[in-house]
Amino acid sequence: MNIYTKTGDKGKTRIIGKKVLAKDDDRIEAYGSVDELNSDVGLAISLLGEKTNSLHDELEEIQQLLFDAGHDLAMLADDQNHPFIFDPASITWLEKKIDQYMKVVPPIKKFILPGGTRLASTLHIARTVTRRVERRIVALQSHSKINPDVLVFINRLSDYFFACARYANFLDHQSDVVYRNSHTIFR
Amino acid sequence: MNIYTKTGDKGKTRIIGKKVLAKDDDRIEAYGSVDELNSDVGLAISLLGEKTNSLHDELEEIQQLLFDAGHDLAMLADDQNHPFIFDPASITWLEKKIDQYMKVVPPIKKFILPGGTRLASTLHIARTVTRRVERRIVALQSHSKINPDVLVFINRLSDYFFACARYANFLDHQSDVVYRNSHTIFR
Amino acid sequence: MNIYTKTGDKGKTRIIGKKVLAKDDDRIEAYGSVDELNSDVGLAISLLGEKTNSLHDELEEIQQLLFDAGHDLAMLADDQNHPFIFDPASITWLEKKIDQYMKVVPPIKKFILPGGTRLASTLHIARTVTRRVERRIVALQSHSKINPDVLVFINRLSDYFFACARYANFLDHQSDVVYRNSHTIFR
Ligand code: B12
Ligand code: B12
Ligand code: B12
Ligand SMILES: C[C@H]1O[C@@H](n2cnc3c(N)ncnc32)[C@H](O)[C@@H]1O
Ligand SMILES: C[C@H]1O[C@@H](n2cnc3c(N)ncnc32)[C@H](O)[C@@H]1O
Ligand SMILES: C[C@H]1O[C@@H](n2cnc3c(N)ncnc32)[C@H](O)[C@@H]1O
Ligand SMILES: [Mg+2]
Ligand SMILES: [Mg+2]
Ligand SMILES: [Mg+2]
Repeated sequence: MNIYTKTGDKGKTRIIGKKVLAKDDDRIEAYGSVDELNSDVGLAISLLGEKTNSLHDELEEIQQLLFDAGHDLAMLADDQNHPFIFDPASITWLEKKIDQYMKVVPPIKKFILPGGTRLASTLHIARTVTRRVERRIVALQSHSKINPDVLVFINRLSDYFFACARYANFLDHQSDVVYRNSHTIFR
Repeated sequence: MNIYTKTGDKGKTRIIGKKVLAKDDDRIEAYGSVDELNSDVGLAISLLGEKTNSLHDELEEIQQLLFDAGHDLAMLADDQNHPFIFDPASITWLEKKIDQYMKVVPPIKKFILPGGTRLASTLHIARTVTRRVERRIVALQSHSKINPDVLVFINRLSDYFFACARYANFLDHQSDVVYRNSHTIFR
Repeated sequence: MNIYTKTGDKGKTRIIGKKVLAKDDDRIEAYGSVDELNSDVGLAISLLGEKTNSLHDELEEIQQLLFDAGHDLAMLADDQNHPFIFDPASITWLEKKIDQYMKVVPPIKKFILPGGTRLASTLHIARTVTRRVERRIVALQSHSKINPDVLVFINRLSDYFFACARYANFLDHQSDVVYRNSHTIFR
């Protein structure tokens, strides 16, 4: 197997359905960013420890779901040969996880500094890269039809990573540091 | 507390002062990038060790300052209800740290490869992400008034992370590798 | 030596050849992203272990080459005083490494989740950041002449990081996880 086909050496590439785009197209930027985020999640998984291993399966599930999301972004919405595959049930699945973690972590009223353990810090990186992905999908959406469920999922996913980072710190007995100039932010 | 409000599920969001913007707006990109950088600093803190723990307090202070910077980017410059909060004294505070570290690390005349220990490598990542943040703020500034002190601080902060990365390697007895084709760059 | 010259405090900066550009110029974005990628490679090097130390020299060589690539992006193609320095022989050097690693890792027909060990995960991050760099170079190329060898190298480099991530997992006896909904992708 040869992975380098050299076909993209001049800056163009193909999407699902074989249409050719410049590599700096908003669509390539969107699913390329999903791929970057997926790698950050991979790193988070590699940092799981004894106290946090319960997060393994759901983080791997998120990697699977990010591929489904990437698929739908890598095709044209009106492509007759390729239906969307992203399952919106994943959104409520995420919401349940968020509710579960928010219930057990110490309540906060103010912003916290993104950090703590190596795992929690990496989850905060995943959180902020998820938000970058969201911005890229919104840019694509401003001129091209997309699967709206993917955007909802990505919005929820950054909230999941916030809850999950806090939960990871909680499991490792690491407390979050409050932003000293924060107003009352969370209700 | 419910962190997912679902109000942003279609790609719009609110800034300080309640104005609604598309999530791919230059302003959201600017303070979203500050949030990503802040998470990288969180990761650096989680990597401090015995020899480098003296950096803890200043890195956490930088996290606090990044929130102040983010605040000023998340509001309109002419918003009558919200004054800027970023304190320019933080710039000279950073400069003193830079001077201090540059004095003790081995002098160089050439570019060095960004790396060394895990901590120093992460500080180099923070350095380059700070420079990405700077580019995003400059893009925002090309059409919207911003707090100019924030831009100065961010420019200085990337130089701080360069000095700090070198200092972290120095503390851990790790030497920097020179870029072999470098001209004489530093005077 | 004073690294902070304050000349860039308002958002402009100089390239090789002394031309002044806004910091959000596509050219600054391109070589600034190369610098970020270079730092990710630095982090990967810091994660090498007993079983993977054989990768040290080539990863450091890649850091050197990224500086050569950055040089050519930081100058105007028609600058009479500065010739391009990137050596295209590095492309075939990379291709040999890819062939070598692809031969020894377990063959796959489907996409795999980007992850595994900390090292492999970081190499996947380098892979996806390389692809971001490629997108930024293509954006620059849409209006300015660049060294085409640099673009070919960057395209090949992301395939190298894919092969290298898989090889790193192989060396550490870590198996890759398949994307469950993947079609037959690799031939
Ligand atoms: C989208 C995409 C991605 C996305 C994945 C999308 C997502 N879900 O997030 C991302 C960006 C992550 C990605 C990454 C990579 N990709 Co990719 N990707 C594609 C792309 C455009 C579509 C693949 C896909 O999803 N197909 C799904 C179905 C719905 O597509 P389809 O159009 O109906 O066609 C399929 C079938 O008809 C079938 N098929 C058609 N004819 C035949 C004939 C036979 C005999 C068989 C068996 C099958 C078959 O195969 C087709 C391809 O899937 C293909 C190129 C292309 N246009 O096919 C490259 C492609 C599969 N990728 C390729 C490569 C090299 C990679 C990377 C290694 C690049 C890198 N260095 O990072 C990584 C690997 C990532 C990983 N973790 O494993 C190469 C593989 C080359 C090879 N050896 O075969 C391809 C073919 C592009 C190319 N260079 O030509 N990729
Ligand atoms: C800017 C901002 C951010 C920035 C922070 C800015 C910075 N410094 O870098 C960033 C991007 C980092 C951020 C991140 C997050 N944010 Co935010 N953020 C905001 C935003 C727009 C302003 C907050 C702020 O700085 N206020 C400062 C003062 C000056 O603002 P103000 O307009 O004067 O209004 C305040 C007061 O009037 C007061 N107030 C008004 N009426 C009342 C009534 C009562 C009873 C009380 C007590 C107070 C009160 O509260 C207002 C809000 O602060 C608000 C939305 C909004 N427009 O208020 C969301 C908001 C606070 N964020 C929210 C969320 C969920 C998050 C994240 C978890 C998102 C994520 N998944 O990453 C993270 C958490 C980060 C962390 N580390 O803790 C939610 C909180 C929902 C909730 N449960 O209440 C909000 C409300 C947005 C929303 N979805 O509606 N955020
Ligand atoms: C391109 C560039 C980068 C690129 C490197 C490019 C790449 N290969 O990827 C990147 C983005 C990585 C970079 C990073 C940094 N850079 Co830089 N960079 C430059 C730039 C624009 C060109 C340097 C270069 O490659 N020169 C190569 C040759 C071909 O250039 P040249 O035009 O022919 O000119 C050289 C010679 O003529 C010679 N020269 C001319 N007159 C004289 C006189 C004497 C006496 C001597 C000895 C030499 C000499 O020196 C010139 C400069 O190299 C210079 C500014 C400039 N315009 O020179 C800053 C510059 C060298 N960078 C600077 C700084 C501070 C940094 C960073 C620390 C910033 C940061 N916080 O991250 C990092 C350090 C990175 C590292 N790992 O070591 C400063 C150094 C200040 C100082 N103390 O001297 C400069 C001078 C910019 C400035 N602020 O004015 N940089
Ligand atoms: C918590 C706050 O973060 C901002 N916000 C919402 N979505 C994003 C995103 N994708 N990227 C960066 N910032 C975002 C809004 O201002 C919101 O109110
Ligand atoms: C050291 C060199 O880096 C470039 N430079 C200055 N600011 C930035 C930034 N925010 N991002 C990327 N590159 C930058 C300029 O060319 C400067 O001279
Ligand atoms: C493997 C698939 O990844 C996409 N592709 C090719 N180059 C890039 C890049 N620089 N960034 C993101 N995606 C890219 C194309 O769709 C290719 O077929
Ligand atoms: Mg949101
Ligand atoms: Mg600078
Ligand atoms: Mg490619």
